[in-house]
Amino acid sequence: MADTPPRSPLAPEQFPSLPRISGVSFATVEAGVRYSGRTDVMLAKIAPGSNIAGVFTKSMTRAAPVLDCQAKIGLDNDAGAAIIVNSGNANAFTGKNGIEATRAVTEAVAKALDLPETRVFSSSTGVIGEPLPHARITEKVNELAGLLSEDNIEAAAEAILTTDTYTKGSGAVIDVDGKQVSIAGIAKGSGMIAPDMATMLVYIFTDAKIARDELQAMLSELNEVTFNSITVDSDTSTSDSLLVAATGASGAKAAGNAAFRDALHSVMKDLALQVVRDGEGATKLVEIQITGAANNAEARTHGLAIANSPLVKTAIAGEDPNWGRIVMAIGKSGAAADRDLISIRFGDVLVAENGWVSPNYKEEDGAAYMKNAELTVSVDLGVGTGKSTVWTCDLTHGYITINADYRS
Amino acid sequence: MADTPPRSPLAPEQFPSLPRISGVSFATVEAGVRYSGRTDVMLAKIAPGSNIAGVFTKSMTRAAPVLDCQAKIGLDNDAGAAIIVNSGNANAFTGKNGIEATRAVTEAVAKALDLPETRVFSSSTGVIGEPLPHARITEKVNELAGLLSEDNIEAAAEAILTTDTYTKGSGAVIDVDGKQVSIAGIAKGSGMIAPDMATMLVYIFTDAKIARDELQAMLSELNEVTFNSITVDSDTSTSDSLLVAATGASGAKAAGNAAFRDALHSVMKDLALQVVRDGEGATKLVEIQITGAANNAEARTHGLAIANSPLVKTAIAGEDPNWGRIVMAIGKSGAAADRDLISIRFGDVLVAENGWVSPNYKEEDGAAYMKNAELTVSVDLGVGTGKSTVWTCDLTHGYITINADYRS
Repeated sequence: MADTPPRSPLAPEQFPSLPRISGVSFATVEAGVRYSGRTDVMLAKIAPGSNIAGVFTKSMTRAAPVLDCQAKIGLDNDAGAAIIVNSGNANAFTGKNGIEATRAVTEAVAKALDLPETRVFSSSTGVIGEPLPHARITEKVNELAGLLSEDNIEAAAEAILTTDTYTKGSGAVIDVDGKQVSIAGIAKGSGMIAPDMATMLVYIFTDAKIARDELQAMLSELNEVTFNSITVDSDTSTSDSLLVAATGASGAKAAGNAAFRDALHSVMKDLALQVVRDGEGATKLVEIQITGAANNAEARTHGLAIANSPLVKTAIAGEDPNWGRIVMAIGKSGAAADRDLISIRFGDVLVAENGWVSPNYKEEDGAAYMKNAELTVSVDLGVGTGKSTVWTCDLTHGYITINADYRS
Repeated sequence: MADTPPRSPLAPEQFPSLPRISGVSFATVEAGVRYSGRTDVMLAKIAPGSNIAGVFTKSMTRAAPVLDCQAKIGLDNDAGAAIIVNSGNANAFTGKNGIEATRAVTEAVAKALDLPETRVFSSSTGVIGEPLPHARITEKVNELAGLLSEDNIEAAAEAILTTDTYTKGSGAVIDVDGKQVSIAGIAKGSGMIAPDMATMLVYIFTDAKIARDELQAMLSELNEVTFNSITVDSDTSTSDSLLVAATGASGAKAAGNAAFRDALHSVMKDLALQVVRDGEGATKLVEIQITGAANNAEARTHGLAIANSPLVKTAIAGEDPNWGRIVMAIGKSGAAADRDLISIRFGDVLVAENGWVSPNYKEEDGAAYMKNAELTVSVDLGVGTGKSTVWTCDLTHGYITINADYRS
């Protein structure tokens, strides 16, 4: 692996102060799965009575731990639960060996924490196609069990990173049903980020009380407008997993509660945008707002065509207000558009309308706006009421440097 | 515009020696549409009795000259014909002004060559969204008419280039129906190249005798396996146009003739691959062969998912035999795949089979193969008999350099 890339210029100043979630504890260890001199395995223990929901990559070549999680996620069980994650090796496309490695790791955790194996979820992230040296993990499980603490979530966020340049966390403390409810989440992700899945690795914990089915429904819905609406490079990981554990310790009933839904949405959106901010080589965070499409699905198609276009992304990297490339991307998306009804704005600057450059547009206004680190591109199609927002980053020399030299 | 990038390392040694096509003559001029110190307008005159077929971009935001060509292409007419092309400005997303500019240019050519305006086809390629300074072209039309010569095809190929690093031509001389038939074609294209359209600007001329409908059917079919099977960057131009003119001067009946079909196929494939070889920043030409897919359409979906993946393309740029990224791209494509039935070859090197790395695969064999400038990646899905071949290039720092600084 190449030298660690520098911290993203879009990174938050520091890891946020996250609320402790009663009944959820974390431990990390240096297992040397692939990296040395850093932690690479994290264990989270979740109290009995918690409900766990998840969404996972739809990739047809998804990794063994993902398949294992999907088999377990729908099984109700009042026992406690655990999540074990390693970085450095994705245990993907590793055939029967991959399934055995996943079983070995989850069995070891189940034994150490006295849990049914069906309540141990695992993820692996890193290189695809190499056997997971699972003994390096299993021999550390007892040590991990002894290190568990409710205060260790930042260390957990650190152990799961791969090409990320900073640790990602987000939390909220709200009032639900007259009681205080906390939410704390961590994520990793930087490359191989594309929608139509639950991106990369994300773990969110809350002490809200909510049934598994209701938690799953809320998670799936919010996932569409957060993690499934970001793209770094249009490439979809084989390992993407998002798990939410609700312990119920607050006693606050969260099903159908708007404040809880909003807080969970806010944590998920914050984590999703932190992934884009750490997009490989990113120097710009770009929000693409589509309105006036034939319907919401077509708005999303247009938004992703713009967000994934290498020519749009390189123009943004070059701080070039090249709205012609936006027009090109709309044209290729396959969704309905009428050239003469499109309007395009960079921030508040109206660039194009009525099928051509706006009469009041000055190139220097567009160029000045493009120098911002956070950009909004708004497109109104003028053909209907469909809308969608997606987020992406620019495509720079940094992306090429990181990815032309990742494995060798 | 940035300085001209260096000649592609994948460029052919020289422009080929193309056969003259009796009744087809060319002229070029420096009109200063955008560039200076080079030719930027070419005119081709085609003898009466010729048949012309074409395929065009499916972009919803296609340029005014493309719409004009599409309106004219199906009209039969025994008069002569002309093609006028400018580089530097795409006359795309230019509203009513764009339509007027196209009309001004085609009218001027019709008048100078005494042709009906419906027989004058035009293309514009270059920057999107700026008004075409059409007077610079119309005032040169009489000069162009005086310069027409059957020997000028290489100059014509030169005048239509934009970010291309070399002129592109291909030809064939064959025996059809006992008579000698010639084909000569030119193309331009380097970025904004993606399938699902007739890529960029391509003009092919032949003295074969073939009815318009038959020529159109043959062209559309061959287009699918040539220009519609290449991708440089997944971005689809607003100007892509491919025109074929058959003068009939050889007297050789070409409809249903296998030798003619093969020769036209060969010229189209050669030109298509020359476009990929000149892909912006390209250092590798990559053929992706998919077999064993559920059907041909799904094979194509897998092939394009691999060919358009930034992570696959950067791995190739880094000469990294990172077959895990091939697996990732297959997984995200949405087409059917069974992880444990996939086999992957780099050239003759069997890399992965039965859901994992091949037991005989050595990383050094893969790494040695990746050093070649021309690569073949073969994937067998093992689920059916569908197959497809697509071509792409790698994604390098050169692409970022060219596109982060194209317009400013």
